[in-house]
Amino acid sequence: MTIKAVVFDAYGTLYDVQSVADVAEQCFPGHGDVITQIWRLKQLEYTWLRSLMERYEDFTTVTRESLVFTLRSLGLAQEPAVVARLMERYLRLDPYPDAGSTLAALGRYQRAILSNGSPAMLKALVKATGLNQLLDATISVDARKVFKPSPLAYTLIEQVLGTPPAEVLFVSSNPFDVCGAKSFGLNVAWIERVPAAALVQDLAQRDRIAPRTLFNILRAQPEELGFAPDYRVSALADLPAIVAG
Amino acid sequence: MTIKAVVFDAYGTLYDVQSVADVAEQCFPGHGDVITQIWRLKQLEYTWLRSLMERYEDFTTVTRESLVFTLRSLGLAQEPAVVARLMERYLRLDPYPDAGSTLAALGRYQRAILSNGSPAMLKALVKATGLNQLLDATISVDARKVFKPSPLAYTLIEQVLGTPPAEVLFVSSNPFDVCGAKSFGLNVAWIERVPAAALVQDLAQRDRIAPRTLFNILRAQPEELGFAPDYRVSALADLPAIVAG
Repeated sequence: MTIKAVVFDAYGTLYDVQSVADVAEQCFPGHGDVITQIWRLKQLEYTWLRSLMERYEDFTTVTRESLVFTLRSLGLAQEPAVVARLMERYLRLDPYPDAGSTLAALGRYQRAILSNGSPAMLKALVKATGLNQLLDATISVDARKVFKPSPLAYTLIEQVLGTPPAEVLFVSSNPFDVCGAKSFGLNVAWIERVPAAALVQDLAQRDRIAPRTLFNILRAQPEELGFAPDYRVSALADLPAIVAG
Repeated sequence: MTIKAVVFDAYGTLYDVQSVADVAEQCFPGHGDVITQIWRLKQLEYTWLRSLMERYEDFTTVTRESLVFTLRSLGLAQEPAVVARLMERYLRLDPYPDAGSTLAALGRYQRAILSNGSPAMLKALVKATGLNQLLDATISVDARKVFKPSPLAYTLIEQVLGTPPAEVLFVSSNPFDVCGAKSFGLNVAWIERVPAAALVQDLAQRDRIAPRTLFNILRAQPEELGFAPDYRVSALADLPAIVAG
């Protein structure tokens, strides 16, 4: 394998979507965790449903609508100022601790993001966190008006970078994204952030489950979709050695 | 509105997907609820993901793969005999108590199912429960090799029944299906099985939540996708009066 480009998913891979929990907890004491999990679950559902319905709206809209759904379903007020404050947190999510150092260590390769995020959200996010200086391109699926895991989304890598799938390592912590990228034909590394053994430990009490645990079941375990990653690593920091072969 | 056909979603609308919980509990004591909820959540996710990945497999495969995912993620054995026993329960789900009487009361209209189910699953289900005698057609999305809410799935109603969308009342308890059907152009009645107030009551303890409650948040509340049903009813039995106008 000769890799010329390393392309990262953004939300959950370079950036921790769980970092909205602090503001969620400040806005709604006692509800921070459940808001965080339902919001993210619904946000992804809406990307899939809108794509399938052929009713694309960009990720800013999807993120706001999934937040409104979350607050309404939980019986919480959907005040515009609070919605705005939660949405703003999405523009400055915490990068994972090894995100910057990993991108820096991959300086000899093309480095890019391919994300569901809208161009405006991604631009704000990489600038706020300084990762813009370590990336050659920040690619939004918005150019195709369809979300991952549609194969159309992954075609943007070659279109923007000029690098064919066989020479790209795509990196994601999201198992559905791993399957989509493999199905499309990319080399894929999966960042396993929630080892199965740790998850089963969290499930000792099965009649009531922490929302985060449910999230970890639904969103952090390998999918049964017929596609497996080429590499399975526990952190971004493991990538430079893999790419070097 | 002149309605000539009433077309029902199957899983969750005429048939209670929660009825697998008894066998799940027998196979895995203490885990019946969590298995039931994760299985159904993942089953629907896989219909959306496979459709979007352009990797259609039929609902029998999707249902089995989502069950395997569920057992694996929960740290439970995936023995073939147990998987087969749980899968078999899907072929004889409990109809809602008013399913048969509602279909009977609608005898002057065309009555059909439009379901994600594979032809084999649906045929077994309507026969086992006797609803086959009250239906003019049992339509599977399998003919289009894509799942709801793709508009292609809903085109099958007119193709099979010969009745245009404006003369069809589509009935579903699944909010994503309501949105897909409305987006396509059908008249739509939503069966609201979990009133919002009841849900908020279940959420009094927010740090740990019953799996069924999480399911009810994710799958039983109106979606924020820009489409609302024409009718919102609490049970199938409310339908004949609506159709009569």
